[in-house]
This record gives sequence, structure tokens and C-alpha cells, in this order.
Amino acid sequence: MIGRLNHVAIAVPDLEAAAAQYRCTLGAEVGPAQDEPEHGVTVIFITLPNTKIELLHPLGAESPIGAFLAKNPAGGIHHICYEVEDILAARDRLKASGARVLGTGEPRIGAHGKPVLFLHPKDFNGCLVELEQA
Amino acid sequence: MIGRLNHVAIAVPDLEAAAAQYRCTLGAEVGPAQDEPEHGVTVIFITLPNTKIELLHPLGAESPIGAFLAKNPAGGIHHICYEVEDILAARDRLKASGARVLGTGEPRIGAHGKPVLFLHPKDFNGCLVELEQA
Repeated sequence: MIGRLNHVAIAVPDLEAAAAQYRCTLGAEVGPAQDEPEHGVTVIFITLPNTKIELLHPLGAESPIGAFLAKNPAGGIHHICYEVEDILAARDRLKASGARVLGTGEPRIGAHGKPVLFLHPKDFNGCLVELEQA
Repeated sequence: MIGRLNHVAIAVPDLEAAAAQYRCTLGAEVGPAQDEPEHGVTVIFITLPNTKIELLHPLGAESPIGAFLAKNPAGGIHHICYEVEDILAARDRLKASGARVLGTGEPRIGAHGKPVLFLHPKDFNGCLVELEQA
């Protein structure tokens, strides 16, 4: 059911410092900062040959990243995103297995303009898992 | 400098349960459990179309995963691994930038039989980063 690893998301306390580190020290291809007000984040995508790293920084007081950084001030890996072909079929299969879908249970449009869902970390070895319809 | 994302490593409290979840619920290609006594872990590799997930479980009392699971009993993302062409050149570039290399600073042979190094999470946004010579 799951396909490619679409991205690994890393919450960072200083977006520009993290971007500079990936660009200059690690020599990676780093994109521009993009505000995503409907998701409460500013993101920078790092393009690796086979997948992406998504640097996340809070945008606004309601940001879902704020609490994570309060608990992990140095930052940390926030979630991993797997691609699926059919997000509603994936959701129904997961729910039938007992996994909890976060929020309303209906897909939202994610930062890439595609339908996404998040799964409860307690059901997936402590990992917040995002599914994105590829 | 960094190339492909070689793998994302997830520490899990119950290796067989996690493998079954990835195989049956998430429909992924899950390999056999492999004991790596020199690294203090038992690993299961999950092959995605573009990268791998490495499920990690402690092996032996000295396992580096033991303390992580004591702190995160449900499990969690333990590290990410980037490929590099020349691990000694990568190490020297990172050290020159002020990043700390864990252990002796000399590459060890990792679970894939290739030279690896780990970088201090405090220098990389709270992420434990492994470098593997591809």
C-alpha cells in the first residue's frame, strides 16, 4: 500500500540557520522559504536525489509545530510522509486495522497541494506518519 | 556533499509487531530480522521504492537503542542516514564547520558493511545524522 517516502520533516528553531547548514555544510540543494499559513508553518524543501527533507518552522500562534519545539528546543524529526495511490482506500484500510487518523479523519490539502492525512504516533511506534496521495 | 537518503531508522519496542504492521497494514516489503551483535541491535529493513526504513530493536545489555527506548517507550525515529561519496572528506568538512563527530571520529563498518559515522544531534537540529559511504 505505501509507496515512496515522500519526505522527512524536521522541526527547526532557526529556519535560516538550518537552511544555511544544509546548503553550505552538507552541500544539499535547498529551496526558498515558503509560508503555509493554512498549515501554520514556514517550510523549506531540501531536494535529495531520491526524496526530500522538509524543514518546518512555526508560523503564527496556532502552529502545530510550536508545542513540538517547546518540548524539543533544539528541534527534531517531526514526521515522515509515505505516498499512497488512493488516500481514502488507505484510510479505510488503516481504520479497519484499528489505527487512528488524526483530526476529522477526512484528507486535507497538504503543503504540496495534494490530499494528506496524519496517523496517530502511538499506533506507529511513536512516529507521526503522514500519508500523501501521490 | 550529501547524496541519497539511505534510510530512516525507527526504534521499536516490539520488532515483530512493527514488522507485521508494515507488512500487513501498510503493505510494505519487509525483510527478515538480522542480529547485528557488534552494533547492539536487531534490524529489519523495509524496502520502499526510493529508500529504506530500518526498524531497530536492542540486542544485548549494551545496546545504543536501550536508552532511547527507555526515554521513548512507544518507540520513535532514531536517526536518518545520508549517503556520501567519501566519508573521510565529509568528516573533515563537517569538523572544519564545527560539527561534532560521535565516538572516536573514525568511521566504523555499519549494518550495511560500509563505513559510517554519526554526527552530534545538537549540531543538526536535534536529529541524529548518520553518514554512510555509498
